[in-house]
Amino acid sequence: MRVCGIDCGTETTGYGIVEWDDRAADARHAPRLVSLGFGGICPPKKAALPQRLAFVHGELTALLAQFQPDIVSIEEVFYSVNAKSALKLGHVRGVALLAAASAGIRVAEYAPLTIKATVTGYGLAAKEQVQFMVARLLTLAEPPEPTDAADALAIAICHIHHAQTLSLQEAQVS
Amino acid sequence: MRVCGIDCGTETTGYGIVEWDDRAADARHAPRLVSLGFGGICPPKKAALPQRLAFVHGELTALLAQFQPDIVSIEEVFYSVNAKSALKLGHVRGVALLAAASAGIRVAEYAPLTIKATVTGYGLAAKEQVQFMVARLLTLAEPPEPTDAADALAIAICHIHHAQTLSLQEAQVS
Repeated sequence: MRVCGIDCGTETTGYGIVEWDDRAADARHAPRLVSLGFGGICPPKKAALPQRLAFVHGELTALLAQFQPDIVSIEEVFYSVNAKSALKLGHVRGVALLAAASAGIRVAEYAPLTIKATVTGYGLAAKEQVQFMVARLLTLAEPPEPTDAADALAIAICHIHHAQTLSLQEAQVS
Repeated sequence: MRVCGIDCGTETTGYGIVEWDDRAADARHAPRLVSLGFGGICPPKKAALPQRLAFVHGELTALLAQFQPDIVSIEEVFYSVNAKSALKLGHVRGVALLAAASAGIRVAEYAPLTIKATVTGYGLAAKEQVQFMVARLLTLAEPPEPTDAADALAIAICHIHHAQTLSLQEAQVS
């Protein structure tokens, strides 16, 4: 299973592609959680909003075409932000969801608390803890930068963890 | 000048194409403010959000290709809405702005009060007053439906009015 995590932001949109290889079932093939790529999409700061959105949409569309993920995993929005921030975030989130829909890729959403709890064991973990744990889970030499990319990788790992749990439950039931 | 007004909404996104023919300068050619088309884009209610956004984006992209407006006119957002509504509206607004950017069309934004004041003379006019005045200004036989389309036509007229005022001012200065 290959997941593209997207962490939408008005200045930087992080992305991270994570693969879970469930064919290699024996211990020798560990680690099976592999990062295929991550980074931050930063539209030109001086560009107008429509052009900034077109930049983010173009980059995400190219990434989805390149990596062909099975699913896009995205953060549910935290409603404690104010209306102005929510609107700005909504613009970016709208074009990200559109990029997934246009590529025919399903979208899964997870709450911020669920994502942090999945990778660190603690829902209110600091950004640095998320970076540290994402690096450990993916056996990266250094914490992924920018933090938006670490968050995106965490969002991808969160989906893999949940899909994994679901399939285990199904296996036990059947 | 040809303007596409867009009134973004989570259920219905109104659009209205208005042309201002400033070549026909003599009185015999009145009215010079002409509606080329209007309507409401309603994505399937049961579809998931990414597919709904793709629907709106696809319809707007097709409209912009068909009518080739010089500019897209859109409403500035009213921040008194709550964060949840702002986020939902932001999703739709994001794909609308993207459609304009992808088509290489500039975007102008106007505050709701400015739009209503321009077409009715009163910034807090009711929806019915906007419909009525839009029908009069465009010499339509009936008030445009849905109200989202009337609002979109008002947004387009607002831009034409402001561009007109600006060019008159420029003519007086030079």
